Amino acid sequence: KYPNVGGGWIEAKNSRGEVGLVPEDYIEVCSGFRKWLLQRRHAVCVYSTFQKLGTSNGNDPWAVFDNNASGGVSNNWAAQPEGTETGKTSSNAWHSGGHVHPQAYQGAGNNSNKPVLDYSVGPVWAYPDYQLDCVVADPKKGSKMYGLKSYIEYQVTPTTTNKPVNHRYKHFDWLYERLLDKFGSAIPIPCLPDKQVTGRFEEEFIKMRMERLQGWMSRMCRHPVISSSEVFQLFLSYKDEKDWKTGKRKAEKDETVGVMIFSTIEPEGLPDLDLTEVEQKCEQFNRFTRAMDDGVKDLLTVGNEHWKRCTGPLPKEYQRIGKAFQNLSSVFTSSGYEGEAALTDALTAAGKTYEDIAQMVAEQPKKDLHFLMETNNEYKGLLGCFPDTIGVHKAAIEKVKEGDKLVATGKITTSEKTAMSKRASTMSYALQAEMNHFHSNRIYDYNRVMQQYLEQQVKFYEMIAEKLRNAHSQFTTM
Amino acid sequence: KYPNVGGGWIEAKNSRGEVGLVPEDYIEVCSGFRKWLLQRRHAVCVYSTFQKLGTSNGNDPWAVFDNNASGGVSNNWAAQPEGTETGKTSSNAWHSGGHVHPQAYQGAGNNSNKPVLDYSVGPVWAYPDYQLDCVVADPKKGSKMYGLKSYIEYQVTPTTTNKPVNHRYKHFDWLYERLLDKFGSAIPIPCLPDKQVTGRFEEEFIKMRMERLQGWMSRMCRHPVISSSEVFQLFLSYKDEKDWKTGKRKAEKDETVGVMIFSTIEPEGLPDLDLTEVEQKCEQFNRFTRAMDDGVKDLLTVGNEHWKRCTGPLPKEYQRIGKAFQNLSSVFTSSGYEGEAALTDALTAAGKTYEDIAQMVAEQPKKDLHFLMETNNEYKGLLGCFPDTIGVHKAAIEKVKEGDKLVATGKITTSEKTAMSKRASTMSYALQAEMNHFHSNRIYDYNRVMQQYLEQQVKFYEMIAEKLRNAHSQFTTM
Repeated sequence: KYPNVGGGWIEAKNSRGEVGLVPEDYIEVCSGFRKWLLQRRHAVCVYSTFQKLGTSNGNDPWAVFDNNASGGVSNNWAAQPEGTETGKTSSNAWHSGGHVHPQAYQGAGNNSNKPVLDYSVGPVWAYPDYQLDCVVADPKKGSKMYGLKSYIEYQVTPTTTNKPVNHRYKHFDWLYERLLDKFGSAIPIPCLPDKQVTGRFEEEFIKMRMERLQGWMSRMCRHPVISSSEVFQLFLSYKDEKDWKTGKRKAEKDETVGVMIFSTIEPEGLPDLDLTEVEQKCEQFNRFTRAMDDGVKDLLTVGNEHWKRCTGPLPKEYQRIGKAFQNLSSVFTSSGYEGEAALTDALTAAGKTYEDIAQMVAEQPKKDLHFLMETNNEYKGLLGCFPDTIGVHKAAIEKVKEGDKLVATGKITTSEKTAMSKRASTMSYALQAEMNHFHSNRIYDYNRVMQQYLEQQVKFYEMIAEKLRNAHSQFTTM
Repeated sequence: KYPNVGGGWIEAKNSRGEVGLVPEDYIEVCSGFRKWLLQRRHAVCVYSTFQKLGTSNGNDPWAVFDNNASGGVSNNWAAQPEGTETGKTSSNAWHSGGHVHPQAYQGAGNNSNKPVLDYSVGPVWAYPDYQLDCVVADPKKGSKMYGLKSYIEYQVTPTTTNKPVNHRYKHFDWLYERLLDKFGSAIPIPCLPDKQVTGRFEEEFIKMRMERLQGWMSRMCRHPVISSSEVFQLFLSYKDEKDWKTGKRKAEKDETVGVMIFSTIEPEGLPDLDLTEVEQKCEQFNRFTRAMDDGVKDLLTVGNEHWKRCTGPLPKEYQRIGKAFQNLSSVFTSSGYEGEAALTDALTAAGKTYEDIAQMVAEQPKKDLHFLMETNNEYKGLLGCFPDTIGVHKAAIEKVKEGDKLVATGKITTSEKTAMSKRASTMSYALQAEMNHFHSNRIYDYNRVMQQYLEQQVKFYEMIAEKLRNAHSQFTTM
């Protein structure tokens, strides 16, 4: 596959398509799901998830949009007209010229910091020119406290620097918590692969966890808002232990968390959105995610049953067919009748063929169904986050709809109402960008996984046909 | 397939390879198992079965070899030295120059009436130059007694005369009884397909019965002793109702039944067989048929389970996979997101493909497993007859072994002992001819059925691969 030019050097192509010589030792040949995950990073568009909302500072002007906030929040909201700085985080949150901005889907390379509305697709995040990704590889057993404590450490290599860093599962979990706190209100952050205590050091488990961590990291890398965040960059490319420790402390003190994240998004130059339209879109997306959740779960149920059959009773049956043919062959051999060697040899070969098929059937799910299941499992996780995200937005919209009444009863001023609308509009832009991110990734992922599934299925049935053709040719026409 | 030359005439080839024009209406396109059965008649060698022994006349010189005969038979045996005519049937039975003779396997066309021992294969029946066969077809509902009694009548057309005769199931059953009475001691006569009272007029049942009657008749035709017998010829080619009735009465009065059949076989010019060698061969064949019986039953059990899976849970599962894909496709269609028609169309197509596969899986057993099962069922029937056939011979051999003692105690004379040995020798020649008939047919049948099974299996998996390839091509690489 890789042309070996000698002297320990191999000609290889990187993800940017550049060809060059690399030391042989640097090459890791990937196969199966890992290979597929690594290929997937070339997606044009990309996506992410979330689960529960981080709690936000009661003083911040976004608190009203926090789903978890109590009924008293409206007072906070009313007390914070636009531009007034009351909380220590409000200034840098709302006005910061951060890197998180929705942007029109006008092709890669648009570096504008403003969210632009493209009426063909709707608001989308600003995607970077270069798609970040990383490789999670090389799990190694490490130990601490003179060997009293063992753990598995994975090598994480970002495609930008190609400089690997090491992380344990608990570091990934730390990153997950940070991302959830910081972006969870706007972006669904999918759960990490399950924690597990028993069997942590078994090869199969480590391989599966690595695969899933790879899938999770790739999905995070694909999200422009997450991948460009300070905490994510720290995780991927800290320089040394000291750098990591310092960065960790800083990230844990970050106050731009919960709904505050919306304050870093400025839909400058964009009109406030029509509430009715936003509500409809939100409702449609809500219905869609619920329906897709059902569809995905159904596929997972069916897939699980098929997996069980393919690895349980079905190969056992093929094995028994194979044994029955071979058994008949050895009975025939015992006949003492001359000249039936051709038949008995052919029968034995046919029997062995069915035993081979039994093994192929049992091993096939790992080659195709596995990817379909993993992808749908990822989506099940993502879809489970959406009701909450959508809930945050619905609550905000409800608040704005009460705006006129609040003004009439003197609870808020007209300018406060305008500010409220502006904020809800920003949240809606963010949600729509996230919806579009989800859809484009979904289309890419399902195209990819179905292609992969069917390709492997074709190979599987072709291989069986080929094996049977061989077995058939051994019987002689008399 | 058949070149239509116009005007209602078609160019066709008969079983002898002769090409000529036949009226279009005469052509019946056969498929499936029937076609296979009709093809099978071109076997080089052929075979038959039996089940229970017919009782023989207590006066005949062969009674001693009848398994069902009581202990008093030895007196009858002793009383009938060779050549002495005591029973009315003994003369024509023993000395008749009938058409039933074992003959050396020296290729077709040997018209010698004497059994010749060929040391490479052993004694074999005299096979005719032209292999008789018949076609059972065209089941028609008939009625008697002004429509009070309904029945199904089949058209039976022998390949010799090409003149069809009609027979009901009960006529086949009558033939079976005659063959069993007449040849059952020497030749296993396989049972007819089951009698059945309910559902007799259902299309599926009629088709299946016709197939099995075809299989049974072809097997009878393949046996040179049976196919050349008067009763079998009557069944196949009676001229009119009167001819049939007269022939029936004559056949029912035939006294050359039971062990008397051996008296029509004259191993002239052949040495008496060595008893020890005969015993060994008999024992080996006994072991073989028991082992094959187990093997065949095992294959039938496995095949039945596979059949159930292929027509039950497996297609249901493929159907559910298909539905899950199509369901996901319609959920995706409801997203409101632009430009995913390519994906949803492809997903729908993939779903339909799995539904098609479900149907293919469910229908496949009829195309391949069916033949394998039918053939093994036939053999199960045949093998079940052998313990009795072998038992008759064992009993005869035991009797001959007592010969010296019987002579010493003055119970039989030396010439009676010699005659006894000669008769046992004839029976052994007949058994060996039958063994060889069985083996050569078995080798032919299993080669044929395995070829047919694997050929259909290859087609099946190739068709699935092709369908999946089509489904795969509809997903677009992005």
